[in-house]
Amino acid sequence: MVTDRTERWNELAAQIAVDGLRATTAAGSGHPTSSMSCAHLLAVLFADHLRTDLQDPGNLASDRFVMSKGHAAPALYAALKAVGAISDAELLSLRSEGSPIQGHPAPSTGFPWVDVASGSLGQGLAVGLGMAFAMRMDGAPGNVWVLLGDSEMAEGSVWEAIEAAAYHQVGNLTAIVDLNRLGQRGATMHGWKGEVFRDRAESFGWTAIQIDGHDAEQVDRAFRDAVADERPTLIVARTEKGHGVSFLANQDGWHGKAVPADRLGSAIEELGGIRDLRVEPPSPPDWKPVALGELRAAPPPAYDGPVATRKAFGDTLAWLAGHRPDLVVLDGEVGNSTYTEEFDRVAPERSIQLFIAEQCMVGVQTGLQALGKTAFAATFGAFLTRAYDQIRMGVISKADLRLCGSHAGISIGEDGPSQMALEDLASMRALQGSTVLYPADGASTVKLVTAMCDLPGISYLRTTREATPPLYPSSEEFPIGGSKTLAGTAHDDVALIGAGITVHECIAAAEILATESITARVIDAYCVKPIDAATMRRAHDETRVLLVVEDHRVEGGLGEAVLSGLAETGPLSGTVLTLGVSDLPGSATPEQLRAWAGIDASTIAERARAHIRPRGPT
Amino acid sequence: MVTDRTERWNELAAQIAVDGLRATTAAGSGHPTSSMSCAHLLAVLFADHLRTDLQDPGNLASDRFVMSKGHAAPALYAALKAVGAISDAELLSLRSEGSPIQGHPAPSTGFPWVDVASGSLGQGLAVGLGMAFAMRMDGAPGNVWVLLGDSEMAEGSVWEAIEAAAYHQVGNLTAIVDLNRLGQRGATMHGWKGEVFRDRAESFGWTAIQIDGHDAEQVDRAFRDAVADERPTLIVARTEKGHGVSFLANQDGWHGKAVPADRLGSAIEELGGIRDLRVEPPSPPDWKPVALGELRAAPPPAYDGPVATRKAFGDTLAWLAGHRPDLVVLDGEVGNSTYTEEFDRVAPERSIQLFIAEQCMVGVQTGLQALGKTAFAATFGAFLTRAYDQIRMGVISKADLRLCGSHAGISIGEDGPSQMALEDLASMRALQGSTVLYPADGASTVKLVTAMCDLPGISYLRTTREATPPLYPSSEEFPIGGSKTLAGTAHDDVALIGAGITVHECIAAAEILATESITARVIDAYCVKPIDAATMRRAHDETRVLLVVEDHRVEGGLGEAVLSGLAETGPLSGTVLTLGVSDLPGSATPEQLRAWAGIDASTIAERARAHIRPRGPT
Repeated sequence: MVTDRTERWNELAAQIAVDGLRATTAAGSGHPTSSMSCAHLLAVLFADHLRTDLQDPGNLASDRFVMSKGHAAPALYAALKAVGAISDAELLSLRSEGSPIQGHPAPSTGFPWVDVASGSLGQGLAVGLGMAFAMRMDGAPGNVWVLLGDSEMAEGSVWEAIEAAAYHQVGNLTAIVDLNRLGQRGATMHGWKGEVFRDRAESFGWTAIQIDGHDAEQVDRAFRDAVADERPTLIVARTEKGHGVSFLANQDGWHGKAVPADRLGSAIEELGGIRDLRVEPPSPPDWKPVALGELRAAPPPAYDGPVATRKAFGDTLAWLAGHRPDLVVLDGEVGNSTYTEEFDRVAPERSIQLFIAEQCMVGVQTGLQALGKTAFAATFGAFLTRAYDQIRMGVISKADLRLCGSHAGISIGEDGPSQMALEDLASMRALQGSTVLYPADGASTVKLVTAMCDLPGISYLRTTREATPPLYPSSEEFPIGGSKTLAGTAHDDVALIGAGITVHECIAAAEILATESITARVIDAYCVKPIDAATMRRAHDETRVLLVVEDHRVEGGLGEAVLSGLAETGPLSGTVLTLGVSDLPGSATPEQLRAWAGIDASTIAERARAHIRPRGPT
Repeated sequence: MVTDRTERWNELAAQIAVDGLRATTAAGSGHPTSSMSCAHLLAVLFADHLRTDLQDPGNLASDRFVMSKGHAAPALYAALKAVGAISDAELLSLRSEGSPIQGHPAPSTGFPWVDVASGSLGQGLAVGLGMAFAMRMDGAPGNVWVLLGDSEMAEGSVWEAIEAAAYHQVGNLTAIVDLNRLGQRGATMHGWKGEVFRDRAESFGWTAIQIDGHDAEQVDRAFRDAVADERPTLIVARTEKGHGVSFLANQDGWHGKAVPADRLGSAIEELGGIRDLRVEPPSPPDWKPVALGELRAAPPPAYDGPVATRKAFGDTLAWLAGHRPDLVVLDGEVGNSTYTEEFDRVAPERSIQLFIAEQCMVGVQTGLQALGKTAFAATFGAFLTRAYDQIRMGVISKADLRLCGSHAGISIGEDGPSQMALEDLASMRALQGSTVLYPADGASTVKLVTAMCDLPGISYLRTTREATPPLYPSSEEFPIGGSKTLAGTAHDDVALIGAGITVHECIAAAEILATESITARVIDAYCVKPIDAATMRRAHDETRVLLVVEDHRVEGGLGEAVLSGLAETGPLSGTVLTLGVSDLPGSATPEQLRAWAGIDASTIAERARAHIRPRGPT
């Protein structure tokens, strides 16, 4: 049955295909054929299902769309043009310098139409799930739509999100697989066998629907059924890459290639020419978030004796629960190790258990923060490596991801190297705009976790398994970019720079050296990035011998952060030595391992002794 | 039906449970209850199914066992004791300093009974799949057995491996899920609903069997059926955490806890006391790998004109295919971008397509190398972040992982930041014992890829999308740890240090400076780790001004590698500046982006000019 509305959808789909071709040919690169396969899906979605507030793109009553197959960005931009969000000139600025219309979708100043970046495949569904969680927490009326490519269904992260959505019975989530049969270099694993994905989705507890993705009526019906269904729904849409143009349709060799200018005309002609249809998307219902209740006034955690910084992290989250109604905390089934269980105890309605699926955890976090939640996620620092791609993409999403990695370094002891975070400072420092924090006691942890709530971008807190004695009063402030100088004078012989657990080893080393009349300054570099270069510079200039001690690999860690900070502020005529973990550890006690690595007090004192110049009699 | 053999299995299972308890109580930590749930599974496996060569653990005719749930290591050690591989004293050295009997299994010198490390969950099945691939390539008779925990089934990486095994019809792979219902902090997602995993595995194309994991006869039958089945088989074994001891069995709160010494006796008593059963495992059949055929003698690739280093990488692999019959190359559905397709063209029988599943790709690689293959894996450098945990675990496995990350840096241009590797030097440098290579032209790529074939540990090659002009004759050698000094004298005003694409910008900058009578030394730091500290030191001492230029983030990259190298060799009284990518890029041409980041020839020249001291008239 062809109706007017079918005709309108088909026209809009043709326009999306044509505009994708025009934009990519103008850019000289891009993915027109991957955009054409989803043209009908986007046409029906944007014209009649995706409830969009064009006046207020941030309206929390709106639906959300996540283009997980980010390389089909031209189709998204074409749809945004059709609803009037961007102009034709903007569309044609695709991939050009300074344009928000990038090769893959990314949020950008003045371009509020993309909530999160995509382009690393398999990540969008977890992000959409996070948005759906946020809506559910707020009682918002929206639905989240995620468009996936068939190739990216090979990413395990997709199945993590499918699992979590079913487990948590997230009904306001619809995933659409653009089953166009062709990947980057040939056929996908399953080609057009959509029943494969249907059966799997059902075995994971989803509702699944198979349709012809170029039949607008089928698409429309599936979208309506998906929204009505109480379970998360996967729509497997059989499509054709390059649909509508004879020399592109279902042809190998056209992935990620713009049509040459001399063939563009005939391609557009086959699609019925250039159009300028405008559609008005459905509006979100009139809904506003409920006003937040009275906040609890309670004193922050304070510690008289030793406490593990991981415990102080959990205590602080639990305390903040009463002050920050926007706070949400995510666990990867280690909440009794990271101590997020303290938050879960007081605010279970704002805790999300994602089990052992770190990629999903960070994806969900990205979705939550896109809808205004202040989201923390925690696991062992070693296992955050599992989500490094998601965290990297968080940078491009301009996401505020508040991460905690516990069980840092060899100081965890007997569990052995698989559980030890030894590369986390390097990988987290390397992220654009990130903040890397590593407290040494309870008081500093409380302040730093509190500060993280308002930090933009990626912030990473490294915590320690063992209890450490208090160093600071609970009133002490810990500004981002700062450090604390302990036990120093202007005439110190050496400066010992530590962070976290090694601060305590440095203090003990200073005490050993003091018995030999060697005065050591101790610096607690609780903020590894941005490093307090001015304090490091002063320590260098005043002592001429810096020993940086870290429970981390030497490459990319605190030592190199200090070196970089010093190099930026002038020459380094003194000695800068880094003591870190150079070899491959095994199981042993924390004390044995620190001695083995040479980051214990005794080795620090020995190395300091060897490098300071003998002083004359005083 | 209780038979003698049932009695023997049950006795052995009780011994494994008891020995796990003894070892963990002796250590004061560990996971006895997780070991007890799989005691019958290991008893039947080690006594009657796992074909083991006790005289020659490396025998390629043997079966292989991967303990994916690495925290149940005590059960593995107890089974190894039962077959006579280790002594009771070794068992009781669990988690103590210097012992190979670590908290989680890891290969160790003099301890050939563990092929690969585990302890980061969800990784073992892909590793087992890699071993199964190796056996199939060699025509070896073995079967691979992988023991999984139920909690780790939430990791998407498990489903990637399930998908790949089914797609490639790998029949010699058996996975066993130890369905003990309890995770670290409470119930798992699916508890004892084994049919959930059965149905899913079947929907992915596996054979699935549900059994009672404490009924040795059922276990035995399932193992026989699994080996006979032509498809990969998942055995879902319902078990009980802490099985056999009333105060531990199916109880919350005992995860990862040793039984206190004062309760050990009663626990052992409930299990029937300490035993010293010895079992002789089945032997592998008499089989030897076939002798390798005649090797092809062909000249290596050589380039007269510009070539992309990614293309030279692929060409070199294709050339090496004829020289190295042990060479296997893995692709994550980007072989036409990384150019592994060149190898696939000449040696399809040694190419494995793993589609867009980078975690699985590196897991398979780890398994392949454990059985003697020289395995390369390649994808975009940005997407190798997806497998960072697997690569990290590769270090602990002492695995030789030869990795290539293509599309490095902002120099990819229009595709935008999601596709740009900008943190890879930092993350790869931070791995213990790694080698990080970044060639600037075709000739150096050929030599470095060839060298990678014989490098131990993690080696990483960073390649560039764009073609770059030749810098070296094909006869030039590129030792690991070296660098090349281009266009330098002993009286240079400044040294420009680049790697990969930035070497060319440095050369162009030196040419600009030459027109102003400023002589610049250019150093090609093709080996980022280990860095050529001696050459950097000489450049520093002779020029007093070093500019390091990198298409990477400043943190943890080439600049910090140079700073570390210099700091180790003496004071840095000169100036060391690093030009890298500080801000968040968008889409633009490569040239525009390099200018935007300030790593183009013109900016390099400008920064050099600003930092060198004016020379007097010559």
